[in-house]
Amino acid sequence: MRDLTELRERLRAFADERDWEQFHSPKNLSMALIAEAAEVVEHFQWLTEQQSLALPADKREQVAQELADVLLYLVRLADRLDIDLLDAAEKKIVLNAQKYPADRARSNARKYTEI
Amino acid sequence: MRDLTELRERLRAFADERDWEQFHSPKNLSMALIAEAAEVVEHFQWLTEQQSLALPADKREQVAQELADVLLYLVRLADRLDIDLLDAAEKKIVLNAQKYPADRARSNARKYTEI
Amino acid sequence: MRDLTELRERLRAFADERDWEQFHSPKNLSMALIAEAAEVVEHFQWLTEQQSLALPADKREQVAQELADVLLYLVRLADRLDIDLLDAAEKKIVLNAQKYPADRARSNARKYTEI
Amino acid sequence: MRDLTELRERLRAFADERDWEQFHSPKNLSMALIAEAAEVVEHFQWLTEQQSLALPADKREQVAQELADVLLYLVRLADRLDIDLLDAAEKKIVLNAQKYPADRARSNARKYTEI
Repeated sequence: MRDLTELRERLRAFADERDWEQFHSPKNLSMALIAEAAEVVEHFQWLTEQQSLALPADKREQVAQELADVLLYLVRLADRLDIDLLDAAEKKIVLNAQKYPADRARSNARKYTEI
Repeated sequence: MRDLTELRERLRAFADERDWEQFHSPKNLSMALIAEAAEVVEHFQWLTEQQSLALPADKREQVAQELADVLLYLVRLADRLDIDLLDAAEKKIVLNAQKYPADRARSNARKYTEI
Repeated sequence: MRDLTELRERLRAFADERDWEQFHSPKNLSMALIAEAAEVVEHFQWLTEQQSLALPADKREQVAQELADVLLYLVRLADRLDIDLLDAAEKKIVLNAQKYPADRARSNARKYTEI
Repeated sequence: MRDLTELRERLRAFADERDWEQFHSPKNLSMALIAEAAEVVEHFQWLTEQQSLALPADKREQVAQELADVLLYLVRLADRLDIDLLDAAEKKIVLNAQKYPADRARSNARKYTEI
């Protein structure tokens, strides 16, 4: 897989071959997206933060699969809405840099707890 | 933004400049990921499927920002776990192709409702 | 089960007998809560709204179990924070009545899409 | 608010007075439910477990409102599916007691990480 563009095209073909476009409304895909994000959360819910940083290999492999599922639905949803993900990410990073200037945000937990 | 690799590097620098690594445990990032996925869901919760396919321009712009937020946390989380997202996506598509052969899955709503 | 108070007491005893208090921080319980909410979402993600109103008996039974799981973690989380759920619900309904006066909100989809 | 039955009746009247039944399909309500659960998660995502156990009063008040929102949508969703929440909770607790016998589960983190 070279990039997000190839991924988008393969997912589009995958859905098309199965006649699944009819199920892939943005509304439905947003539900699938959050259901997959929840699978990620489930892996971490009873772990300490420290444990979450040092996953055993098999668990890490499972988490990788869940992250892939999130990406798949995210790319599919963006495609259905004709949104360019990298372009949107670029814009968001610029906004975030204005919102949290590095010199003031440095090590500032309040920035985190109050956003 | 060229690709996910550049995005990963920029997010890493962004967190580093703000001394935010301490907050970015995979556990915490999984929570931020699902919170952003929920912002996407919120845009669609009272819309019909049909309406979700024909968003007004300003609403579509807002959804693009939420999708960007999901991508940002997804990339950051993968980075903290040293997971290659495109590689994981590739593997998952292969698995899905085996699980849902195109000829049998064609237009099959049951495949959807019973997985 | 008579009421939420009995449910709270039984869940407290259940955790206590298993020495699970240590895992039941509000942070962790909020993750478990959303993971269970996602199980509910999963049942509906590929259904039309109409289909979601007319579930087959076995599916309805499964959804009932997921709703129970959400309630269990919600009650447990409220208990750990010493929050009275019915009291909080009462307050929220009063707030909502002020926010959405019946005469103006009547049949107003915009109230929904723009909140 | 005396109990869940009164809450259900008040929410039913609230929706009826505003002609909102049309938006309250179980599918839509499951989305609203998880969006509210995510508001809870947001409060805790950058806190340590310890901090989540010792919220300042104003933050605790905000979390109480979010928990109320989760309860409101949970009760509304159960009502639309004609599910008795306390009855479902009772059944689930019995199942959980069989699944995690107190003597074997005692202080067992593995029971948590491997379910």
